[in-house]
Amino acid sequence: MGSAEALGKDAAAHQKLKMLRERLESDIVTADADIVARYSTDWHGDVTSSALAVLRPRATEEVAQAVRACAELGIGIVPQGGRTGLALGAIPDAPETQVVLSLERMNRIRSLDPADFTAVVEAGMVLEAFKEEVAAQGLFFPLALGAQGSCQLGGNVSTNAGGVNVLRYGMTRELVLGLEVVLPDGRVLDGLSRLRKDNRGLDLKQLFIGAEGTLGIVTAVSVKLMPAPEKVATALLALDSLEDVIELYRRARQQCCDLMSAFEFMPPLAFALAKEGIPDLALPLEPGHEAYALVEISGSGFVDTDVLMERFLELSMGDGLVRDGVVAQSQAQARSIWLVREGMNEGQARRGKHLRTDLSVPLSRLADFVTEAENSIADSLPGAICVSYGHVGDGNVHLNVLPVPDATEPVDDQICRAKAVLNEVLDRYDGSISAEHGLGRLKAMDFGARVPAVQRDLLEAIKRAIDPNLTMNPRCQIVLN
Amino acid sequence: MGSAEALGKDAAAHQKLKMLRERLESDIVTADADIVARYSTDWHGDVTSSALAVLRPRATEEVAQAVRACAELGIGIVPQGGRTGLALGAIPDAPETQVVLSLERMNRIRSLDPADFTAVVEAGMVLEAFKEEVAAQGLFFPLALGAQGSCQLGGNVSTNAGGVNVLRYGMTRELVLGLEVVLPDGRVLDGLSRLRKDNRGLDLKQLFIGAEGTLGIVTAVSVKLMPAPEKVATALLALDSLEDVIELYRRARQQCCDLMSAFEFMPPLAFALAKEGIPDLALPLEPGHEAYALVEISGSGFVDTDVLMERFLELSMGDGLVRDGVVAQSQAQARSIWLVREGMNEGQARRGKHLRTDLSVPLSRLADFVTEAENSIADSLPGAICVSYGHVGDGNVHLNVLPVPDATEPVDDQICRAKAVLNEVLDRYDGSISAEHGLGRLKAMDFGARVPAVQRDLLEAIKRAIDPNLTMNPRCQIVLN
Repeated sequence: MGSAEALGKDAAAHQKLKMLRERLESDIVTADADIVARYSTDWHGDVTSSALAVLRPRATEEVAQAVRACAELGIGIVPQGGRTGLALGAIPDAPETQVVLSLERMNRIRSLDPADFTAVVEAGMVLEAFKEEVAAQGLFFPLALGAQGSCQLGGNVSTNAGGVNVLRYGMTRELVLGLEVVLPDGRVLDGLSRLRKDNRGLDLKQLFIGAEGTLGIVTAVSVKLMPAPEKVATALLALDSLEDVIELYRRARQQCCDLMSAFEFMPPLAFALAKEGIPDLALPLEPGHEAYALVEISGSGFVDTDVLMERFLELSMGDGLVRDGVVAQSQAQARSIWLVREGMNEGQARRGKHLRTDLSVPLSRLADFVTEAENSIADSLPGAICVSYGHVGDGNVHLNVLPVPDATEPVDDQICRAKAVLNEVLDRYDGSISAEHGLGRLKAMDFGARVPAVQRDLLEAIKRAIDPNLTMNPRCQIVLN
Repeated sequence: MGSAEALGKDAAAHQKLKMLRERLESDIVTADADIVARYSTDWHGDVTSSALAVLRPRATEEVAQAVRACAELGIGIVPQGGRTGLALGAIPDAPETQVVLSLERMNRIRSLDPADFTAVVEAGMVLEAFKEEVAAQGLFFPLALGAQGSCQLGGNVSTNAGGVNVLRYGMTRELVLGLEVVLPDGRVLDGLSRLRKDNRGLDLKQLFIGAEGTLGIVTAVSVKLMPAPEKVATALLALDSLEDVIELYRRARQQCCDLMSAFEFMPPLAFALAKEGIPDLALPLEPGHEAYALVEISGSGFVDTDVLMERFLELSMGDGLVRDGVVAQSQAQARSIWLVREGMNEGQARRGKHLRTDLSVPLSRLADFVTEAENSIADSLPGAICVSYGHVGDGNVHLNVLPVPDATEPVDDQICRAKAVLNEVLDRYDGSISAEHGLGRLKAMDFGARVPAVQRDLLEAIKRAIDPNLTMNPRCQIVLN
C-alpha cells in the first residue's frame, strides 16, 4: 500500500472512530493501543491483530446502541467473550473497519431457579464463576472445558462449545433453553424462555447457537441445570491400542448405562508431555503402554458409581482388554488423573508453535483414521511428532502435529503442509474439520473449499436475510465480502 | 362464491392438475376422490379438506421433480407423513391450489450401523417399524409416542415430536444427526451426516427440525441410537395433589440419577376414562386419590432399576408423600399400567369432540397454573370437565376440556370459548400454546396473535429467504399469503 493511500485509510479510520465516540457513552469506547492489542490477540498468542476500538457495553441496551451506531457508520463488529476460542472467531482481521465488542461487563446472573432447574445469565459471565454459583444451590451446570476459568457463557453459546462432558450432557446447544440476542439492526430478540419444552414452530435460538456472532450478539442465555452428581468414579486405564479403547467405550456405554461423564483417550506420549507441562506431577500409572483411557462415571442418589466402575473393570481386566489401571481412591487422586490430561496440553504448548486440530469421523472409523493420518504425517514430515487424543465417544480426535525441531523448513510452512496432509485423509473419511471448536476465521477458507454449493447458498441466504449489510463478525465462518 | 366463479376455479384447478400430470410419472399422481379425501382428513376425523391431488414419490429425485413441477405451476405443497399430527400441519386448506405430498413410499432403512450407534432412514418409514429393526440389532431408538404405529420419521422430525421419553432422551431434535431435504427450488440438501460431533458453523439441519415442512421436505434422516435398556421398572403411584407429584419428580431426579425414562401425571378421572376406553382393563391400583404418577426407570448393564425403584419408593412412602402404589412385577403388569394412560386418551375420544391442548409453563408454576386454569373453566363453562395430564418433568400439561353434554351452546362454540379462557390464563404464566405438537394450521393464528414483532420479522425473513414463492406448506406456522 502506498503511504498516501495508507494515510487516507488512517484518516478514514480516525473519522469513523470519532463519529462512533459521539454516538456512545464515553466509558464504553476504548482506543488505547495497549488495550486494543490485548483484545486483538488470540488465546495462544499466535495471532495479533488490531481494531478501531474496543467497546465494552454494560447492558443489553448499550449493546443495541453500539450495534446501531456501527451499522450507521459501516463498522464491522467482532463480538468477543473470554477470548479462549481456538478458531479466531473473536479476533478482528480488518483494523481500520472493525471494532471488538466485549461482553465482559455483562456478567451477572439474572435469576437462578432451583425449583425449575434453570438459570438466566448474562453473556459475559465466566463459565467457572457461574458453575460455582450453581453448585452453591446444590445444582450442576455440566459444561466443562479446559478454558472454563476464562471463557464466558456467551462465547460458549456462540461457538456451541463441547468439552469433556459432551458424552453425558451434550454440547452447549443441548443446555440452552433460550437466548437474548441483539440483531444486526439493533433490535433485541427477547427469547429468554425458561420452558423445558416449547415447540412453537421454527426454533429461532438454534440459529444463533454456533453462529459465532455472525447473525447477532448473544447478550444473555437461559440454561438447563441438573441435579449435582454426588459421586464420581475416575479411572486411568492402559490398553494395547486405540481399537481396544473404542471397544472398551462400547462396553462401557452398555454396562454403565450411559452414566459415563467422560471417556478420553490419550497416547503413550501423554505422560512425557504432562511431565513437561507440570514438572512435579506424580504419575498415577506406569507409562509404557500403547493407549490410555480416562473414564469418569458420575451419579447421584441411589446409584453407586464406585460399584459400577468396579464391576465394569472386573470384566474388562478379566478378559485382558484392560492391561493395567488405577481407580482414584480420593478426590486428590482423581485430580492427579485429570492433571495428566491437562498437563499434556500444557506440555504441547511448551514445545512451541504447532498444528492443533479438532477433527471428527464416525466412531467405527476412528482408529483407522488416526493410523492412516499419522502414517501420512510420518511420510510427509519425517521427524514431526503426532499427538492424538480426544473424546472417543464423540469420534472427536485432536490430532496435533509438533513440527520437526531445527528443520530448514520454517515452522509455519511445516504446519501448513501437515494440515493439508491431514485434511486430505480426513476428506476421504467423510470427517469434519471442526468437531467442537467452530470455524471462526481460522477455518473459514478450508470450510468454504469443502462445503457443497447447495449448503453454501443456504448459508449465504440466511446470512443476507438477517445481516444484509454484513456487519456482524465479517469473514467469520463464511467469506462474503 | 358465484357458480361462474366456482366453475372458473374448477377449470383452473383442472388445468393445473393436467399440467402436473404431464410433468410427473403417472403412478405418482392420484386425484381419485376417495384417496384424496383420505389424505385430507386429520387423525381424529375432526377436519376434512381436499386437494388437487395426492403425490406419492418413491425416491428423493422424484420428490425433487414434484417440487420443481409445483414451483413452476404455482401449486402449494403440503408434505405429509403418517397424518397423526395434532395441529393440522399436514392437512391441506386450499383444495384448488394445493397438493398433498406423502412420503409413505419412501420407507426404507438406508443403513444401520451398530458400531457407530447410528442409522440412516427414509422419511416415510413408520416409527414403530424402525424401532423394531433397531431392536433386532440390540439397540434402541428412544422416541416413543402413542401414534408410533402410524407416524413416520419424517413427520417426527418436521414436528420435532416429543412423547413420553423426552425426560431421558430429549425431543426428536436431540436424536437427529443429519437430514436430507428437498428445498423449495427442487435442489437437494445432502446432510446425512453420521458424525456425533460436528461444529462447522451454523447448523442448517436445525432449521428444518420443527419447521413442519414450511422450508423444504425432509426425505431422509440420520439418527442417534442408544444401548437397549435391558431393565425397566414401572410404577403407578397415588398422591394427594399435583404439587406432591412435582415434589416427587424433584426427588426422583436426584435419587434416580436422571435414569427416569418417563414421569407422567394423571387426574383421578383417568381410571374412569381408561375403563370407558378399554372396558376389560384390570385397574392396577384402587381409584380414589387426588393425583397419580406413572414412573418408569430404565437401565442397562450393572444398574439395577428394580433396586433403584424400591429404594426411591421406600423413602417417599415412608414419609407419606406417596399414599399408595404398585410396582409392576412383570412385563404384563407394566403394560397394564401404561394401558391406564393410553385408555384415558381413548376414553376421552369416545366422549366425542373436545378441546385438546398441549401447554407448557415453568415447572415451578405447573400446579398453580392447572388449578387456576381449571377454576377458570369451571366459572366460564359450568358442567364442562377438565382432564389434565401430561409430562411433569417437562412442565407439559395436556389440559383437555370435555364440553357440557346436551347444552344449548354448540360444542364448537364451547371449545372455542374454553380455548380462549385457557389461553388467557396461559399468557399470564408465560406459557407455550404448543409444548410438543407444533403449530400447524390449527395454532398458526393463535401464535401470530402472540408472537412479538422482532421474532415474527425474523421468522418471515427466514421463510422468504428460503421459500421466496411461499409454496412450501402455505399458511402453516406463519400466515404470509
